[in-house]
Amino acid sequence: MRKLFIIGIGTGNREHVTMQAISALNQIDVVFIPTKGDEKAALAAIRHEICDRYISRPVEIREFPILQRNRETPDYRQRVIDWHDMIAQSYGKLFADMPDDANGALLVWGDPGLYDSTLRIVESVKEQTGLAFDIEVIPGITAIQALTAAFAIPLNTIGNPVTITTGRKLVSGWPDGADSVVVMLDGQKTYAQIAPGNIDIYWAAYVGMEQEILISGPLAKVRDKISAAREAARAEHGWIMDIYLLRRTSA
Amino acid sequence: MRKLFIIGIGTGNREHVTMQAISALNQIDVVFIPTKGDEKAALAAIRHEICDRYISRPVEIREFPILQRNRETPDYRQRVIDWHDMIAQSYGKLFADMPDDANGALLVWGDPGLYDSTLRIVESVKEQTGLAFDIEVIPGITAIQALTAAFAIPLNTIGNPVTITTGRKLVSGWPDGADSVVVMLDGQKTYAQIAPGNIDIYWAAYVGMEQEILISGPLAKVRDKISAAREAARAEHGWIMDIYLLRRTSA
Repeated sequence: MRKLFIIGIGTGNREHVTMQAISALNQIDVVFIPTKGDEKAALAAIRHEICDRYISRPVEIREFPILQRNRETPDYRQRVIDWHDMIAQSYGKLFADMPDDANGALLVWGDPGLYDSTLRIVESVKEQTGLAFDIEVIPGITAIQALTAAFAIPLNTIGNPVTITTGRKLVSGWPDGADSVVVMLDGQKTYAQIAPGNIDIYWAAYVGMEQEILISGPLAKVRDKISAAREAARAEHGWIMDIYLLRRTSA
Repeated sequence: MRKLFIIGIGTGNREHVTMQAISALNQIDVVFIPTKGDEKAALAAIRHEICDRYISRPVEIREFPILQRNRETPDYRQRVIDWHDMIAQSYGKLFADMPDDANGALLVWGDPGLYDSTLRIVESVKEQTGLAFDIEVIPGITAIQALTAAFAIPLNTIGNPVTITTGRKLVSGWPDGADSVVVMLDGQKTYAQIAPGNIDIYWAAYVGMEQEILISGPLAKVRDKISAAREAARAEHGWIMDIYLLRRTSA
């Protein structure tokens, strides 16, 4: 049976790679690497480096273009589902081209379970094409662990919950009863749109990568500094990925 | 300056260890390994194996007994704080005994940021003793990633938040508006105490370890099976660590 490894590679630090990922990388015949645009080019380069550094057997690397979402679809969830469908069709062709006994791999930024669409897309490839293959998921370091490690802070306060959410959700209100809120996928600087009282922010861009930027402090005090750093970095690199932890303080 | 590495080692799969952790392990002179009781003995054995497998220079391994919490302190938070204080005193002695230019390491189960007290304890060692040392945190695979990888499922539904919480908190109510809830530190089988309608559970014990057990399905259907498996495993091994994801289904 053909096998597809879905491998979490961490957040751009080549040393986030686990021994389990290296072991999986050395069982594969083909690696599929998505490319497109400034961001994808940078991320593709890191995937290539990880393959070069950690794979010690012949492996074929197939690049493929990632399609863009159709921004005209008004509903967010529908837009994402349509986009997954389009990607599933490209994946279907890529997988169908693999020899019958070959193992393939997709290298996922962070961890395959957290705000990543690969698992859903691969399931729909199975449904749409009837192709038979096993899936093995290798966990990876997420941006959340990279963030808290960079600041040497705990994610949670003692015995309390943590909410992981998106900018899109945070804008409609602070999660009920939460004291620690991680925000991902925020292209809209939502941290600057909420009431900043009694909140500390721990913000990182490109967390784990060489160009990592870290800013923390009371939200009211540092939010403008973060926005300025964010815009400058985005202008410099052509793309940005950021994440932040918001913590309610008792003061 | 003396340095203390706080290294996330993943959840018992020796291959969860990252290249960054291996690199840190090879910069240290002393590893501190906690021991006590059946659970700690098993976890200490894995820490020893990780040191044996991945450290390629002379290193001293110092075992130290972990103190128990005082179960008579009625308030949960105070009980934890008192316990951290006691551990901080042992750590203070251990660190003070290190040569001035030596690097030390503590190997943390999962990731040092998530429901782990090491960072808080080490900060209080600094405050209490005035010892000067740098801290470097190395992120690790958490039980959450090991859980979703084992089931090959995403942690979140499309664009929606995730709540990470404890059994102690879940018993007082389902987090407002959440559809994906991860429960950790649950010694009380809280999954069996909540209304099970329209909830799927993905449950794992010893996730990532050889003795891993996985059970999933509609909560109403599988909760008794989970409880039976949990009790049997606990009786067999003398200890148990488990984690689960609860997902609201639309049906």
